[in-house]
Amino acid sequence: MSNDYANKVAGYQQKIQTAIDTLKLPAEPRRLYEPLRYFMQLGGKRMRPVMCLLGCELFEQETDKAMPAALALELFHNFTLLHDDIMDKADKRRGQATVHVKWDENVAILSGDALFVLAYEQLSQVPVEKLQAVMAVFNRVAREVCEGQQLDMDYQDRESVSLEEYLLMIRLKTSVLLGACLEIGALIGGADQEDARQAYLFGEKVGLAFQIQDDLLDAYGDPEKFGKMPGGDILVNKHTFLRMSAEALANPDQRVALEKAYTLTAEQGKVDKVKTLFNQLDVVGKANLKKQELLEAAFASLDKLKKADTAIIHQLKGLAYYLVEREQ
Amino acid sequence: MSNDYANKVAGYQQKIQTAIDTLKLPAEPRRLYEPLRYFMQLGGKRMRPVMCLLGCELFEQETDKAMPAALALELFHNFTLLHDDIMDKADKRRGQATVHVKWDENVAILSGDALFVLAYEQLSQVPVEKLQAVMAVFNRVAREVCEGQQLDMDYQDRESVSLEEYLLMIRLKTSVLLGACLEIGALIGGADQEDARQAYLFGEKVGLAFQIQDDLLDAYGDPEKFGKMPGGDILVNKHTFLRMSAEALANPDQRVALEKAYTLTAEQGKVDKVKTLFNQLDVVGKANLKKQELLEAAFASLDKLKKADTAIIHQLKGLAYYLVEREQ
Repeated sequence: MSNDYANKVAGYQQKIQTAIDTLKLPAEPRRLYEPLRYFMQLGGKRMRPVMCLLGCELFEQETDKAMPAALALELFHNFTLLHDDIMDKADKRRGQATVHVKWDENVAILSGDALFVLAYEQLSQVPVEKLQAVMAVFNRVAREVCEGQQLDMDYQDRESVSLEEYLLMIRLKTSVLLGACLEIGALIGGADQEDARQAYLFGEKVGLAFQIQDDLLDAYGDPEKFGKMPGGDILVNKHTFLRMSAEALANPDQRVALEKAYTLTAEQGKVDKVKTLFNQLDVVGKANLKKQELLEAAFASLDKLKKADTAIIHQLKGLAYYLVEREQ
Repeated sequence: MSNDYANKVAGYQQKIQTAIDTLKLPAEPRRLYEPLRYFMQLGGKRMRPVMCLLGCELFEQETDKAMPAALALELFHNFTLLHDDIMDKADKRRGQATVHVKWDENVAILSGDALFVLAYEQLSQVPVEKLQAVMAVFNRVAREVCEGQQLDMDYQDRESVSLEEYLLMIRLKTSVLLGACLEIGALIGGADQEDARQAYLFGEKVGLAFQIQDDLLDAYGDPEKFGKMPGGDILVNKHTFLRMSAEALANPDQRVALEKAYTLTAEQGKVDKVKTLFNQLDVVGKANLKKQELLEAAFASLDKLKKADTAIIHQLKGLAYYLVEREQ
């Protein structure tokens, strides 16, 4: 990050981290609050609360009043990760043991539930004249995120998933929350319903493009920068934009080859064989095109805002571009 | 139930059941919404929302505006039951298969989370001028209920639990929610903070006495009326008011005998042996005394209300008396 938005984002990240560090939580029961504190300290880019604060700043210079909502969104995001880790049987989160591994599954279920309550505790501090509108958005996307996680699990049991189904799933599972961050920030900043809606659409489109970049990095990222060897998603047969696009673009022979490649083991060169087919079908080109379309649609939403600070619009575009083109 | 409150309660139960039956939920994803609908249809006395409506009626004849909060409290209660069933590895709930048995654990975690969101969706419909105050109460007790469940699990791993610890645990796990039902109803009905607090205390005390009656029925209930053979809690070494009281009252010899009795199997006459010791120590007398104290304290709180409908106070006392002396 080197543009004019970088300092702004870094400042917000710092502010949010401090707020998380100073959240007042009781010491007891220890096995309820310790896992929760542990999980919140695993880090992350805190992009959701940053987006919320920027969404507010589009309409209002003073962003402090958006801090409780920003925190609520970050707490909610972490709650979903904590429970997803149980459902996905994930051992690690940001390089550290997940809660259900470090403690046990019951602890993970219950401290996740408590984290969800903490999110609503923050949310209840939204300025009272905005509370009902903000809660409506928050509840709507909280439900959608649950739906997205269920679709993700449903798809894992299915033979084939279409590109459209995949896009619906990632929209619900990840993009709507990014949209909500902008929408809630905008509402608190004083945006009318129409402008808040455009702010939402910006976040949602950026979220989709962000997820596609995630899929790209996993298969084609530079291990030096990305921090892990490429192909993790391929090895576990994960549904990704690349895989779904390849299936959609393949002719009957290529489809058979693709299915076969996905049955191989790592030792049989699975990653290379799948990527050779990806390359033949130019799914990277398709992914880049989709990202570009999404980014353009996202920017168009910002340009439709009737009353917003143009400097902040510019910063949001810079941040979106960074998130969608990032190499790590 | 045969007093003047009975018709009132039956009417409210009917109204709440209708509201639950007509909750608008999407059909898809099926594995998210079907378990949730299934669980909400398992029934129950719907005492929490009834208490919420009566709490409102203490201060305001028109109780419709308390319906969303009443529903929120019932949805929240069911959310906690759904997740508790996973943690407690319970196979049955009200005679039917629990969600994690009928579907699987992931489905139970996620549909529970969605149920929690539904609760907050209802809560957001509380009249806007009361929303922040109501959310503060709701969030406070939601957190306490998590704490109570954690204490319950902590105690299961411990050699000994004192009567005070047991009472703290059941207060957090069950009574505070009943208190919140009254408090939230009162706030929506227009009570000031002081009256809302007294309404809370009434509910909390009744909740504690209710739980003690539950413990009594499990050991001494009439199988014809209670619907199951006495001694279930004893057989699984559950912490109950009776067991904790017996331990507190026992002399060293009786304590050894009690510990030994709890190590027996059903076939070795465990239930009878434990109950013989309970009888020697008159823990039933102690439980009845405690219930009476709690009921008196609960009634005293109602009598302290500065501005409340005396007919409703009378009905609430009748309902409380019924709940605490019920035989099933």
